[in-house]
This record gives sequence, C-alpha cells and structure tokens, in this order.
Amino acid sequence: MDDTVAALFRHTREQSVAFCSALCNEDYGLQAAEFVSPPKWHLAHTTWFFETFILKPHADGYRTPEPLYEQLFNSYYNGIGEPFPRPRRGLLSRPTVSQVLDYRAAVDTAVQALLDDATHAARREILGRAVLGVEHERQHQELFFTDIKYSLAINPLLPAYAPGAPIPGGEPPPLGWRGHAGGLLEVGFAGPGFCFDNELPRHRVYVEPFELADRLVSNAEYQTFVDDGGYRRPELWLADGWTTVQEQAWRAPLYWLERDGEPLEYTLYGAVPRSTGAPVCHVSGYEADAYARWAGERLPTEHEWELAAQAAAAPSGGVDSGHFHPRPATGGPGLQQLYGDCWQWTRSAYGPYPGYRPSPGAIGEYNGKFMSNQWVLRGGSCVSNSGQLRPSYRNFFYPRDRWQFSGIRLAKLSAAQ
Amino acid sequence: MDDTVAALFRHTREQSVAFCSALCNEDYGLQAAEFVSPPKWHLAHTTWFFETFILKPHADGYRTPEPLYEQLFNSYYNGIGEPFPRPRRGLLSRPTVSQVLDYRAAVDTAVQALLDDATHAARREILGRAVLGVEHERQHQELFFTDIKYSLAINPLLPAYAPGAPIPGGEPPPLGWRGHAGGLLEVGFAGPGFCFDNELPRHRVYVEPFELADRLVSNAEYQTFVDDGGYRRPELWLADGWTTVQEQAWRAPLYWLERDGEPLEYTLYGAVPRSTGAPVCHVSGYEADAYARWAGERLPTEHEWELAAQAAAAPSGGVDSGHFHPRPATGGPGLQQLYGDCWQWTRSAYGPYPGYRPSPGAIGEYNGKFMSNQWVLRGGSCVSNSGQLRPSYRNFFYPRDRWQFSGIRLAKLSAAQ
Amino acid sequence: MDDTVAALFRHTREQSVAFCSALCNEDYGLQAAEFVSPPKWHLAHTTWFFETFILKPHADGYRTPEPLYEQLFNSYYNGIGEPFPRPRRGLLSRPTVSQVLDYRAAVDTAVQALLDDATHAARREILGRAVLGVEHERQHQELFFTDIKYSLAINPLLPAYAPGAPIPGGEPPPLGWRGHAGGLLEVGFAGPGFCFDNELPRHRVYVEPFELADRLVSNAEYQTFVDDGGYRRPELWLADGWTTVQEQAWRAPLYWLERDGEPLEYTLYGAVPRSTGAPVCHVSGYEADAYARWAGERLPTEHEWELAAQAAAAPSGGVDSGHFHPRPATGGPGLQQLYGDCWQWTRSAYGPYPGYRPSPGAIGEYNGKFMSNQWVLRGGSCVSNSGQLRPSYRNFFYPRDRWQFSGIRLAKLSAAQ
Amino acid sequence: MDDTVAALFRHTREQSVAFCSALCNEDYGLQAAEFVSPPKWHLAHTTWFFETFILKPHADGYRTPEPLYEQLFNSYYNGIGEPFPRPRRGLLSRPTVSQVLDYRAAVDTAVQALLDDATHAARREILGRAVLGVEHERQHQELFFTDIKYSLAINPLLPAYAPGAPIPGGEPPPLGWRGHAGGLLEVGFAGPGFCFDNELPRHRVYVEPFELADRLVSNAEYQTFVDDGGYRRPELWLADGWTTVQEQAWRAPLYWLERDGEPLEYTLYGAVPRSTGAPVCHVSGYEADAYARWAGERLPTEHEWELAAQAAAAPSGGVDSGHFHPRPATGGPGLQQLYGDCWQWTRSAYGPYPGYRPSPGAIGEYNGKFMSNQWVLRGGSCVSNSGQLRPSYRNFFYPRDRWQFSGIRLAKLSAAQ
Repeated sequence: MDDTVAALFRHTREQSVAFCSALCNEDYGLQAAEFVSPPKWHLAHTTWFFETFILKPHADGYRTPEPLYEQLFNSYYNGIGEPFPRPRRGLLSRPTVSQVLDYRAAVDTAVQALLDDATHAARREILGRAVLGVEHERQHQELFFTDIKYSLAINPLLPAYAPGAPIPGGEPPPLGWRGHAGGLLEVGFAGPGFCFDNELPRHRVYVEPFELADRLVSNAEYQTFVDDGGYRRPELWLADGWTTVQEQAWRAPLYWLERDGEPLEYTLYGAVPRSTGAPVCHVSGYEADAYARWAGERLPTEHEWELAAQAAAAPSGGVDSGHFHPRPATGGPGLQQLYGDCWQWTRSAYGPYPGYRPSPGAIGEYNGKFMSNQWVLRGGSCVSNSGQLRPSYRNFFYPRDRWQFSGIRLAKLSAAQ
Repeated sequence: MDDTVAALFRHTREQSVAFCSALCNEDYGLQAAEFVSPPKWHLAHTTWFFETFILKPHADGYRTPEPLYEQLFNSYYNGIGEPFPRPRRGLLSRPTVSQVLDYRAAVDTAVQALLDDATHAARREILGRAVLGVEHERQHQELFFTDIKYSLAINPLLPAYAPGAPIPGGEPPPLGWRGHAGGLLEVGFAGPGFCFDNELPRHRVYVEPFELADRLVSNAEYQTFVDDGGYRRPELWLADGWTTVQEQAWRAPLYWLERDGEPLEYTLYGAVPRSTGAPVCHVSGYEADAYARWAGERLPTEHEWELAAQAAAAPSGGVDSGHFHPRPATGGPGLQQLYGDCWQWTRSAYGPYPGYRPSPGAIGEYNGKFMSNQWVLRGGSCVSNSGQLRPSYRNFFYPRDRWQFSGIRLAKLSAAQ
Repeated sequence: MDDTVAALFRHTREQSVAFCSALCNEDYGLQAAEFVSPPKWHLAHTTWFFETFILKPHADGYRTPEPLYEQLFNSYYNGIGEPFPRPRRGLLSRPTVSQVLDYRAAVDTAVQALLDDATHAARREILGRAVLGVEHERQHQELFFTDIKYSLAINPLLPAYAPGAPIPGGEPPPLGWRGHAGGLLEVGFAGPGFCFDNELPRHRVYVEPFELADRLVSNAEYQTFVDDGGYRRPELWLADGWTTVQEQAWRAPLYWLERDGEPLEYTLYGAVPRSTGAPVCHVSGYEADAYARWAGERLPTEHEWELAAQAAAAPSGGVDSGHFHPRPATGGPGLQQLYGDCWQWTRSAYGPYPGYRPSPGAIGEYNGKFMSNQWVLRGGSCVSNSGQLRPSYRNFFYPRDRWQFSGIRLAKLSAAQ
Repeated sequence: MDDTVAALFRHTREQSVAFCSALCNEDYGLQAAEFVSPPKWHLAHTTWFFETFILKPHADGYRTPEPLYEQLFNSYYNGIGEPFPRPRRGLLSRPTVSQVLDYRAAVDTAVQALLDDATHAARREILGRAVLGVEHERQHQELFFTDIKYSLAINPLLPAYAPGAPIPGGEPPPLGWRGHAGGLLEVGFAGPGFCFDNELPRHRVYVEPFELADRLVSNAEYQTFVDDGGYRRPELWLADGWTTVQEQAWRAPLYWLERDGEPLEYTLYGAVPRSTGAPVCHVSGYEADAYARWAGERLPTEHEWELAAQAAAAPSGGVDSGHFHPRPATGGPGLQQLYGDCWQWTRSAYGPYPGYRPSPGAIGEYNGKFMSNQWVLRGGSCVSNSGQLRPSYRNFFYPRDRWQFSGIRLAKLSAAQ
C-alpha cells in the first residue's frame, strides 16, 4: 500500500503540471474573478499543502525556498496564519512560473524521501496526509479546469484551452424516470479506501419513495424554458435567486453566446456551435431550481441521489477520458450521466452528518467550516478526477455559482405517494 | 367557528394599533435598515393583505381609497405587481399616520361585512383567507417590535418603547440536559386549527438519540465566550460567519453596550444594566453556532427541537404576558424557555418538507420562495404572538440576522452513541 | 444697527418655521438621500449654530435642553466634535418636532437676551456671529426647499408642498447676447454689509472680452438637445460626466416626468405640465457643460458672470416673491434671469481667492474646507433668500448635483477675439 | 525636420521596449488597480494609437494583425468605439507578450514606410500625428514606471524593477523662498516645437506678487507633520480630503513602510531605508494641501509655478538621467527641483485656457474631456521623459491620486502684500 501512495503521489503531481502544459506563460497568472484562482497559484498551493502538513512537521532539516510562501499560498487555513488576500492571487507575478515549478520539484523530492523512509516514527500520519494531499490536489486539478475556462472566456479573443472540438453526439432519448422505493436506509461512505470527513459518519436516513430522471436536462430543453420567459417570471424562482437574476442580468447559462444569430457555447475548445443534445451546463443552483419548478418537478435531495447511485453501475468517466465537455446522453437501461458529464445540483443545503467531527488542528478547516449557505452537488463532471467519482462524494457550492460544470437532474416523489 | 374568525379579526386588528400607541407620530415612519419596516408600513401592509386577497376578489363594489397603495404596501408578492422598493419604505411620509388609520378602518369595515355575510358564494375562501390574514398580521406584530427596537436603538438618545424595566430574575440553575430516544418519528403540523404551509406535510424522519440543554445560554455564559476571545478566533466560526464578523466588526451581541465601564443592554425599556442571568439575545446564527462549538456542543436540528417540544409542556408566554424582554430561567423538571423568551437557532437550513406544495397564485409566495440560504429558528420570543406558539412552527432568518429576539439552546448526540 | 440685527434675527427665525408650516408632521423627518437633510434637522441645526457659537461661549448660565444635541445637530464642524452621521439624519424620530420647536424657542430667548445686552463685553463678536447665524439660516432655508422637494418627489403619490401652480408665462424671446469688454478688473465683495469669507479678498483679475446669453436656456431648447441624442453621445461630455450619465442612467433633467405621453415636471406644486418656455432647471454641471458644447458655446467663468452682474440691474426676486418655480424669461434690455429663477453653473472650480483666509476656530470650517472638486454657481434661484442675492455671492456644488434649482446660461469669447 | 520625426519615432519606440526589458514575462500583464495598466497594454496601446490615427486613415493596403485589437487597446476614445473595460486590462493573457511585440513591429514598419514617403498627399497630417504619437508614447513611458511600481509593490516579496539603489544624498539646505513680482503676464506655450492642446492658447493672467519655496518638502519635514498628528487632525484637511483619509485609512505617503521599527520606502529598487533628505513623494493632492496648511503656507497656483519656471534655468533631468527615484536637494542660487524629481501639486483645478479648442474628431478626446475634478501638477519627475520637461506642461490627476511621483512645493503671497 505504501508503494501505492508514492506512485499515486508521483502520478498526481505530474498530472497537475501536464494539465497546464497547454497554456502559454501569460495564462498562468490569470484570475478573472475573486472565486477563481490562477493556474500558477493552484500549482503552488497544492505544493504548499504538502509542505505545510507533511514537510514542516515531519521532515527534519527541510528548508522552504521562501518563507513568505507560507502566506502567499495559504488558501484559507487560519490556523496557519493570515492568508494572502484571495482577490489578489492574480497579481503575484513573482514567484514566476519557473520558480513555482522549482518549488514543486523541491517539495516533491522531500516528500518522496519521506515516503521512502519506511521507518519514520510518524509514518502512519505521513502516509495519511500524503493521501489527503493527493486527494486535495485532485480537487484542485478540477478547479484548474473550471477556473481557466472562466478566465479565458472573458477575453474577447475567446482562446481555446485544447485543440479539437466537443464530442458532438445526437439528440438524447426522451427523458424517462427511474423509481426508488425509499425507506430507512444508510448513506455516507462505507467502503475501504479514502473518503473526506464530510462523507462520514455513515448513518440512517428515512426517505419517501421517489423517482429520478434517467438523464440530465439538455440544452434544447433548457432553451424551451428560456423561450417561455424563464428568466422573466419571478414566480419560478426562489426569492434570493430572483434577486440574483436581476442583479446579474442573467438571461441564459454562463457560457451561452450568440454570434450573427447562431447559438454558440464557449467551451475549453473555444467557442463552438451549441449542441442541442448536450446537457445544459454552467447553470447556478437557482437556475436549476427554477427550471425544475417550471417543468413541474423538483431537484433531488442529496440522499435520494446517493441512494439511487448506490444501486446504479460503478462510476466511470471524468478527466481521464480526455474530453473537456459534457456529452449528449445516449440512452441505456439505468440512470445515465450520473458521473463524468455535469455535477448535479441537489436541493440539499450542505451541512454536517449526525455526529460529524472535523479533524483536529488546521487541517480540520478542510471541509467543516463551509457548512452554511452552500448547496450539495452530486456525481462528477467531465473534468473531475476519475479517482474521486463515488456515490457518497459531496461537492458544494453557493447556489449562485455557475462556473463549475453543473447541470440539472430532475426528481419527484413517486406517483403512488 | 365563523364568529371566532370575526372576533379574532377584530381583536388582531385592534391589537396592532394598540401596540403602536406608545409611539410618537414621528416614530411611525422609522426604518433604520433595509431589513426593518416602519410601524406605519406594518399597519398599512397588513391592511393591504386583506384588501388584496379578500376585498378585491370578493367584495363587490369595494373601492380602494388610493390605487397606488397596491404598489406602496405590497411587500414581495410579484404576482400582484412590482412592489415599492423595500429600502425606501421609511421615506413615505404620505400617506400620513392618520390616513393609514383611515385606510385600516375602511378595510376593516369592508372585511367585517364580508365575514358577516354567511351566504357569500366564496364564504369558505373568505374565511380561510381571513384566518391567514390574521396569522399574517400576528407575524407583523412581532416584526413591529423587533423593527422598532432596531430603529430606536440607533438614536443616541436611546428612547424607550415602554415604561418600566425588564423583569430582573436571578441567576439561572446550572445547565442540565434532557435526553430523547430518537427513532423513526413524525414531524410537521398534526393538529386541528391553523398552520402555515411550510409546516406540512407531516412526515416521518429518522433521528438519532440526542440531548437538549434544559435552558437557554445566559448572558454570563456568553460573556465567558467573549472573554475567551470568541470573536477573535476563526477556528470557532463557520467561514461565512468569520467573514461576517470581520466585515461587521462584531464584538458582542447586537444590543450590548457599555457606559463608563458598566455593562448595559438596550431593550424596549431603553438602556438598562445587563442581566447576567437573562438569556443571551440578539445573536446571529453564526454567533450561536460559534458559541456552541466553543462550548464543545452544537446547535439542535429543527427535527430534534420539534420532537423534544412535542413531548414537553404546552406552549405559554409571548407578547400577551406583557413583558418585552426575555427573562432568566428559573429551573424546573423539563425543558425551560422553549417559548416566550428567545427564538432558538437550529443548524437546519430552511427547506421544503417532502411533498411540500405552496398555494397557487400570488399567495403561494408567502413562504416557499424563501427556502434557500436561511436557517430555521424554533420556539418563540417574548414579543411573539401567543397564539402562534406551537412545536411545529418554523421561523426562518438569514444566519447573519441579529435583530430578532434570537438566542441559543445547545444540543448533542446522546452519550451512549 | 444693533436693532437691525435683533429684528433680522427674529424675522429669520420666524421665517424658517413659517416655511415648514405647509408640511405635515410626518414630512419633518424625511431624508431621501444622503445629500439632503430633513426639515426638522434644518430647524435644529440652525438653532445649534446659535447655541454653539454664541450662547455656549457668551451666555452665562445658559443650559442646553439636551447635551446630546451638540452631536446630533452638528453638521460638519469637526472642531466641535464628531457629528452624527449625515446619512442617518432622517432616522432621528426623537427629538420630536415639538421638542425641536421648544429647543428653538429656548435658544431664541437666550440669544435675544444677549442681543439686548448692549454692555456685554463680547458685544461686537456676539453681533457679528448673530449676523453670520442669520445668513447661515438663510442658506438653510433655501436648502429646506431643495431638500423637501427631493424627498417628496420620490413618493409615488407626488405630494405638493404648496397649493396652486407655477406661473405659466409664454415663450421667451429668442436668445440674444450681451458683450463685455473684459480687461484688468476687480471681483469680490466690495460693499458695506455682510459677505461670506469666500467672497474675499476683492482682487484684480484679467478677463478677455466675452459675451453672455441674455437669458437662461429654456425647457424647449433643452428638449432639442435631448432629442438630438444629447444623453447618448459621449463626445459632448466631460469624461467624468459621461461616467455619471452611464452610472445614473440619466436621460433628462432630474424632475422631468412623462405620464401617458404628456411631458410633466415635478415641482413644489406637485406634478404639472412641463412649461416649454420656463428655464430648464435641476440639471447637473455636467449636463450644463454638455448642453453648452452641443450648442457650440460654453459656460461662463465665475469672473465673467460677476463682472457682467456688476454692470447689470440690482438683484431682485427670490423666495420673498412667493413663487416656488422658475418663470419663463419675458425679455428686456439687459441680462435677464440673473437672480431669482435658477442658479447658473459656471465652469469655474470652487477655490480660494488670492490671499483668502478662513476665520480661526471651528467657524473657519464654514466655507474653506469645501474648496475642492466643486463648481461655482452664480446668481440665485426662486427659493433663494432675497437678502442674499448679490453679484459676488459664490454658491458651490459638485458637478454631479442636480437637486438645487440649477440652470444654464451660455457664454462665449467675443467674436472680435 | 522630417528625418527628425522618423528618428524620434524609432528612438521612442525602441525606448519603450527597452524600459520593459528588466521585467520577467509574468510582469507584463500586471494590473494591481483600476487606475494602472499592465506593461503589455502600454506597449500595445501606444501601437494602437499609431495604427488608428495614422495607418488606418493613411496607409493604403494596411491590414491589422487582429481586428479585435481596435477594441482591446483603445483606452478611452469613444469616437473609435467602445473600449475594452479598463479594470480588466490585466486579464488579457492573449495576445501574448511575443504577439504584442509582433504587433509593434508590424505597425512600426508600416509607419516608417509612411514617414519615408515624402510625396504622400497627407504628409503634413502624417508628420503631425507621428509627433503626437511620439509624445503620447512618452507619456505612457512615464505611466509604465508609475504603474509597474504600483503593481509590484503589492507583492509581499517586494520585487525590484532595477538593480542598485537610489542616489543617497545628504540633508538638504534649509528651505528658502524666491520672490516673484507678479503682474499682468503671459502663460501657456510660446515656443517653437510641440505642445499639447491644453497648453494653448497662450494668454494673459494677472498674478499678485508671490514667493515659492526653493526646494521640495523633504521626507524629514513630512515626518514632522505625521508626528504632529497630521493624519488625525481634520482641521488641516479639505473636507473631501478628510473623507478620503478616513476611507483609505491613510497614515503616511503611499510607499512608506516600516520593518522592525526601521523606516523604509518601496522604490523601483525595492524596499530601501527611507532617506530623510529626499523629497517626500507619492503624496496625494489632499496630503500636499494639508501639509501646506499645517506649515502655515499654501500650494502654488499653476500660473505662479509657470511664471517662476519661465524665469528659471532650462529644464533638465528626467528618465534619461537613469535614476528612478527623486534625489535630495543640494542647494543653489535659484529654484531647485523644478524638474526631474517629483511633480508638484498646484492648487489649480485643471480647466481650459480662455479660447481653448480641442482638435476635431476622436483625437480631440486626448485632453479636453478630462477638464473637471482633477488638479494640475507642474514640473516633472525622475521617470518623466526628458523631452517633455517645459514650463508650460500641464500634468493632471485627481487630488486623491498617489501613485505618480508627486511631491510638494510650498508657496505664499509676498510678505509685502
């Protein structure tokens, strides 16, 4: 198992750098909004995580290349000190990209040495934190994709991250429903292997019988909502959602464009014709909720989603598949598009499971302190790390957020109810 | 029952005016923040509610005294039209107080006539909406108290709403715990009589065994939290809460004052010495949550609170008791201070019960559209209408809100867990 | 002269109260924007001025009715202490109107006694400050009119301050020009009697020959500018003006309205048909400047205006004329509408005259500290105190301000140039 | 003369690129505040200026490398189209630095060809606009220095632009005064050669006799102001200045730092010990004005400064001297430090000279539309282009601006007055 950790570490560290290799040097510093981070910052912060939580406590004689990195690349761990202000991450031209890669190399060497030291007194904690660091970096790899997409999209030149084009696909099959009997059941992580603290403790919940849509809502279906005045009818919206629609002047999903009357969508391949069959993506939780209300349905709860996913096929897809845009559903016997296309908004507020306990110390700030005002999303997207797809994974964002690959799966109570 | 409605209507309408009688004319227009409303506006809006939902659809020949009132006194019902901007309610010097009282009288007469018309074709709906209008006005009576307290408090003269002083009380007994066995149980309104749509449907929930504190957290206990650096230690706070603490420069509950080193509290009786034994009041959900974390406990869920309240003594207290400030706990066999002192923050996000359906039409905007980003409070306060205290009542505010009479009851999973 | 001061004091003090008598009690607290003050505050602040600068230093045994008034009714004199925040003046329901009138009466009695004391050691300073206090109150009388107009106008009921209607008038004569030879001349106050410190020292300026329009720009003329795309053409605007147009979404002067296609104007008489012949009023300096550029002319400098006014007929008009809206020009031999209709924007930034010295102490904050970023207006309006109209009077507001009775007089260098 | 233009063009274009050569690629995109621009943007915008005002109208067959550059690199010329939003200039990772240098080369070649075409029908206009383009680029060279200083300074690593250190210098001689007799005199540009439209027309002004300080205020003198409570005493400040001090929490000039109790200053050489003898730099107009008031003096008017400069030695200094920080005064017979150390705030609002006319078309937006709310600075700084130093040059910034190399020269009316 120890060898696995070392291999996983190496692989993940290399993967992060590889994902950036399509960029030009100038892109590494881009931060087009407070809620995104520059690629260079992701590269440095994930390094900082290993340095802070493994090397500084456990690597004798380790010397940081620059003491100020402790502040510059701290994200939000108040237990470590006051982080550099988030909205200014894009203003750090120094350290340069090259210096950050050197920082990565230095930390990698030191971590590798620790992982190779089978007799280290703190071996158990080192291995545990290395795994956490890898999982942390996998999450930042996904953020890298969502953030650079957002930052490139504001440039009128609409640069592409990747060559090529989205997988076209055709029209999806008609939307069908899959029932679940509900009952007093268990949710939360249960397997061997890694999970985040917010997936624990596994616990019982009582759920009424329900049905889930067997695929995601498509662009064409969402267009019907738009054409029906979806963004102009307050009765379809939560009050805070309606306020946001007005303030932000939302009229369509985040990356929908028109040029000379032709519907386009900005993707990691640049601006391309908008696929009618592809799932609608980059909608906020408010838009997902309004669409569901307009359709006469609702969003699932996170428990419903997880119970259905427990009974479904094993996860597949994600960024290892090598495509950077969600694909149209193709049909099949069970629930389609659970993973690997768009995250799915639930109507569940993100909160602690009964008996939840964060880790002690600064590392306990990882998940627990965000358990207010955010909504849970379930599943995974085309840019998720394939190793993180599982039924119990809880993603969470503010309901106003749109820059993640977030889509819509409908739900309803079973008709028998 | 019809007579009861008419009597209830008369009583409630008179009560609203009576609560204002302690004010001087100049106070009726006060709005010291966007989230509070002037007393005059409360008097007019509750009247508008009867006019809009009963008289306009059902009273033949009814003529409004002023068509623009439809806009001026609409709170948030987009189905009726665009409301007058909320932050400007305090700028409506016209209609005058006297004109608003005339408006009330005209609407009262017309509603009374409808209630007396036992043969009206829409009698069932008229009665139902009259009851809803009364319950609506009871809620605004409570808001009247919380709002005028806030608006008077920003005046350096610190005017009192009421003569006299809070009931002093002594030190409360040591905090004890009351256990509940949990299980698969029912929550939601079940009785005869009125409830709001958000208390329905009654439904099953599974709850682990838990314990609730037998009284509210006192000012003295909260002072210990403050003295222990509670407002300076980010590790005690939810991330959004910590951001709010910084932005708002919170250092104590909303109405705590000091003068010449003496601890005071602004109350509806003016500034008075701060009672160490009285429950801490006017704290945000973030402060409640941080206090609980500091104390090693947590806030209850709304289901826990409701299940415990189902098993407790019948509600009592509220504004009919004639005191306008929460009182120190006195001790007793069961859960103390469930109602009539401070609302109790839960850690439950406000959302729909399984199968929840709002009413059709504009009146459906009453509750449902607020089901995001707010937290549920349970119980009732010293200024709640006594007729609204019940185990299933769900109050809801943003976790940053402090101007309600909101306090803290601690909870924990049962030790046996 | 001493009797004159006492008489002037009495008259002015009574006048302020009389101007308010058309209001209902609820109007006295209105403050619809940070830059306006409630009528009650004007009544109290002008009283505070006498209390602070005459009674407290010179009236033995004077006791203020309320020590906190020193803070509540201080406008901007940092030398006296930290003033109550300006944006919150409308939130002071206490002291009530009646209490403020009592405050006025108490201060009036005490000042009157001092003015009657011919042997007081500080008699010279007392008389001087009494005159300054009267002039100060006259300025606040004008602000009372502009402020209540603004505060009433935001009410959809569009209440009238005064019964009746503006003087209609017909179309003005064609716009003509009056030349001035320029040269090395003197500006600044030169007469006997009172002037403000910013009108001094009288000093020499060199001015090129110039011409002034013989009347103000009319509503009809301004409408042509609007119809010609005036608010959509950036080339007509100063950069800061264009930014303001965009931010404020300006499309017309402040109080222009339309109802069912009919052009209206909100006035102190309520909403009335917009007179084509009346001078355009309530335009910002930016709008005045843009209009002038569109017309191929420019605004006058304050020196040009003053030199022309020195040579013109004696001032007349103002609020004593009993009309509250500017009237159409009627024609005549010289410069029309210099005083008593609209203040006239100049393109002169408000600054100190050469050798300018403010008074020592807090009273020196009266004028000098505002000498940045504001523009000078000259003349006077229909709501100016008639006793303050004179060629050397310098009014000043930010170029974005529109709630004063401000209009446009064009200028140009003489053709011979 | 035509050869001179071509040579000047070549020299200036090369100079801009050379100034950037000390940067790393990552620095080229830095924009740490809305009011600064990234180096890359300066390089592109100055190129755009030649392309837009010379090539597009006059170079047959010229094809822009990218039509969107018209929008991306337009600064504020509404006559050309809607510029890319200023606050987002730092978010344009594309075009890359290399692509911008290609853009420069392409435009340079085409301009050079036009300059070489002695028979072009529009030769006169081409030469005139080439000169304007050169002067424009010289201004942007200075902005390059002030902007990159600002953008690097917010990085906690405090990177240096240049190796080395400021010229230390010693204590300056005691501050002396130089008198000027005043009178009816001429200001404005009068020589042969180039000037900006805002320096014209040359015209007569009347000025009272005055005196100017013979050197700039030093850091040590300014420290005394700080130590005397300069930033805590509202009576020293213009009202808008005091508001700014509070809002911005100013306590010292922009780049003053302390580390372990030692006074430092951030410079283009990085953080260095703060020279007591060097002139105080990077103060706002408000701070300059407050300092002057505290010192019992005032700032000069722009006319006073220009008249004194007319009588002084010819300009020298500026960026060609190769030092990037102001030096301590060394003493001498006349006015020291007029040019080449710090710009000097005047108390003159920036406005048009009598008879001022901007150029027709979009190029007329160069200067005229900024003639409101800004103050005039005179002289020049250590990073000014040496070719632009002259008595009549009018620089202008908002009185709150601090990121220019702006200092303080005192003035007063002659004692004889």
